[in-house]
Amino acid sequence: MTTAEPNSDPYLLEDMSGHVLWLTLNRPKQRNPLSSGMLAALTDAIDRANKSADVRVIVITGSGPVFSAGHDLREMAPQEGEEAAAREARVRQILEACARMMLGIVHSPKALVACVQATATAAGCQLVSACDLAIASERAQFCTPGVNIGTFCTTPLVGIGRNLQRKHAMELALTGDMFSAEEAVRMGLVNRAVPEADVRAATEELAQKIASKSALGIRSGKEAFYRQVEMPIEEAFAYANEAMLDGMMCGDAEEGSRAFFEKRAPVWADA
Amino acid sequence: MTTAEPNSDPYLLEDMSGHVLWLTLNRPKQRNPLSSGMLAALTDAIDRANKSADVRVIVITGSGPVFSAGHDLREMAPQEGEEAAAREARVRQILEACARMMLGIVHSPKALVACVQATATAAGCQLVSACDLAIASERAQFCTPGVNIGTFCTTPLVGIGRNLQRKHAMELALTGDMFSAEEAVRMGLVNRAVPEADVRAATEELAQKIASKSALGIRSGKEAFYRQVEMPIEEAFAYANEAMLDGMMCGDAEEGSRAFFEKRAPVWADA
Amino acid sequence: MTTAEPNSDPYLLEDMSGHVLWLTLNRPKQRNPLSSGMLAALTDAIDRANKSADVRVIVITGSGPVFSAGHDLREMAPQEGEEAAAREARVRQILEACARMMLGIVHSPKALVACVQATATAAGCQLVSACDLAIASERAQFCTPGVNIGTFCTTPLVGIGRNLQRKHAMELALTGDMFSAEEAVRMGLVNRAVPEADVRAATEELAQKIASKSALGIRSGKEAFYRQVEMPIEEAFAYANEAMLDGMMCGDAEEGSRAFFEKRAPVWADA
Repeated sequence: MTTAEPNSDPYLLEDMSGHVLWLTLNRPKQRNPLSSGMLAALTDAIDRANKSADVRVIVITGSGPVFSAGHDLREMAPQEGEEAAAREARVRQILEACARMMLGIVHSPKALVACVQATATAAGCQLVSACDLAIASERAQFCTPGVNIGTFCTTPLVGIGRNLQRKHAMELALTGDMFSAEEAVRMGLVNRAVPEADVRAATEELAQKIASKSALGIRSGKEAFYRQVEMPIEEAFAYANEAMLDGMMCGDAEEGSRAFFEKRAPVWADA
Repeated sequence: MTTAEPNSDPYLLEDMSGHVLWLTLNRPKQRNPLSSGMLAALTDAIDRANKSADVRVIVITGSGPVFSAGHDLREMAPQEGEEAAAREARVRQILEACARMMLGIVHSPKALVACVQATATAAGCQLVSACDLAIASERAQFCTPGVNIGTFCTTPLVGIGRNLQRKHAMELALTGDMFSAEEAVRMGLVNRAVPEADVRAATEELAQKIASKSALGIRSGKEAFYRQVEMPIEEAFAYANEAMLDGMMCGDAEEGSRAFFEKRAPVWADA
Repeated sequence: MTTAEPNSDPYLLEDMSGHVLWLTLNRPKQRNPLSSGMLAALTDAIDRANKSADVRVIVITGSGPVFSAGHDLREMAPQEGEEAAAREARVRQILEACARMMLGIVHSPKALVACVQATATAAGCQLVSACDLAIASERAQFCTPGVNIGTFCTTPLVGIGRNLQRKHAMELALTGDMFSAEEAVRMGLVNRAVPEADVRAATEELAQKIASKSALGIRSGKEAFYRQVEMPIEEAFAYANEAMLDGMMCGDAEEGSRAFFEKRAPVWADA
């Protein structure tokens, strides 16, 4: 339905590098749209990774000259002979699948890092915001261009609005302009911008560093972070203390503490 | 009651530039205070603009050497022979009118841009924070000086505390110091600082760009942004998706999408 | 229980400088850990200061080459012959005492400034985040290294997650890396970094400036800030307006306003 020619290539390339799973959006000619097919592939790959003790960190990157251009506009458009109600139901399903995938990143027990090798727009920009961390090519650009086609990047702003300060989020949304990687760093959308040639290596280095930590600690701490940050501060402290206590009572904490005092490298339990 | 000499000039100058409404605070000698009269004029002008299909963007700026010095201290002070209870009731009305005006900016279906041509203090600084976007003269300064006169800019901090990170907001509030436009950019209170001579032109250019987008898209997207950003993330996604879907089903979205594929400029519906 | 040799030095040094109370963490050889003893000393000192009209600002700093290394790992570790349940109960008490102390800073009617003379890690980094303002030595570093010992700085992230944007908070937490003072400024964890030799003088200057303001104004405004910033915006305005009105009706506001119009220095009521 969404592409002129059928494409039998997998939506996602999956490569393990030690305990780091690289997921590469694999529709470079279409600018890696978050089509229904791509959303399903991402959701499935993350679900599988969540259950794998072997995976400690997930990297999401794109192949080709674009990271991701967001929703597939041809798929979002009315289809030949389609009634308004049928289209609405169909588009709602895509939006819900997209939100599920984004929330799946936030709720994943693994650390997720966006390797933004090139420009990220609309829901592609939202995908960057959903990841725990992001490293971008200095040549990557970022925009939420809904206003240019008569809408507004309302859903992308859920993620972006939780990464950026308000004036910055509204500047992206109201202008639809392209922002440089340097500006994305300044605004807090990405952690760092590096030369294009180094973006994979810099991401790999960051991901391997995180993969060398206790997966149990990260699982517990990441879940607690995104929950407590939405709570009133007293409640957040009470909740975080119990999560911290659970984490400190687990085997990795004992091993970590012992290794620290014995000045040796710790040996962690499985993820 | 509040000014030594009666002043028959309008509180606000209103000028249309294409679909952009410029509102200019017009009490330059008094440093454009947000007096009852000024608050009423602003609330009224924004209300009228909200209902006008012709207005797509509202710019707020000041005339003279100050953007706005905030509340009119003479109006806030006890009046000759006034009982404490009467003064409290009177001041409460002014504070409520001020909050209503600020919330009116946040809830306006139009995009609002502050053109901070000069220094903004106290509730004047809050006015900058309430707008969706802000461009400042490099010579403008910003402060919340309540602590210098025995109070605290408690209400301005509602807006400023939602624009800035906490340490920055508290630095403004606890010191009462003047901060430069460059610092205001760094803290996220304004989007950009430009040479004084360029601040109107830069704001006009930004406002015209936003005015060229779909007003329906902005109306829907702006409302959704300020609502979802206060929700827990799951609820925010569910709500934003429905808002986005509504937006995508409207005529401007159809026109925008068609124009995109036909590589022509879109023709939007009225605001 | 927690130190090899008993140490009869006070946990905290307390020095008054005008109306500014300097609290100096005084376990330099142990890197100023937030042990039970230190937490109790801090809580007690802040409680006493809260009740003292003489104290208008509290500065927290460290003695020696570290600001604070966070919890005392020897105290958190299982003790000789201790059952798991007994340890859990004991560690919970320490975590709760720590959260109480941090919340005590947020809820203190006095302004609190961290003078980060050297590196702050884990709960020591959280202590910086809890203060209203922070000035750091350019040589100070910041980290949340829980992931390096099999846990996660889950509780420190309550404070840090309310100071920093999300990608920055997660970068600290997931990497466990040391971040420079310059990076801490960029991220909003500290207000300013100054040469090591100047950090006490710069903090003293800032603290004395704040001490010269109305303590009543700061008491009311600080409480209102941390409460309103967690509310939906309409509720925040309504609440802040009432707090502001209370503040404006107090004696200091009258004196401040009168002094302003009479162009003289105000004379404030006691703290």
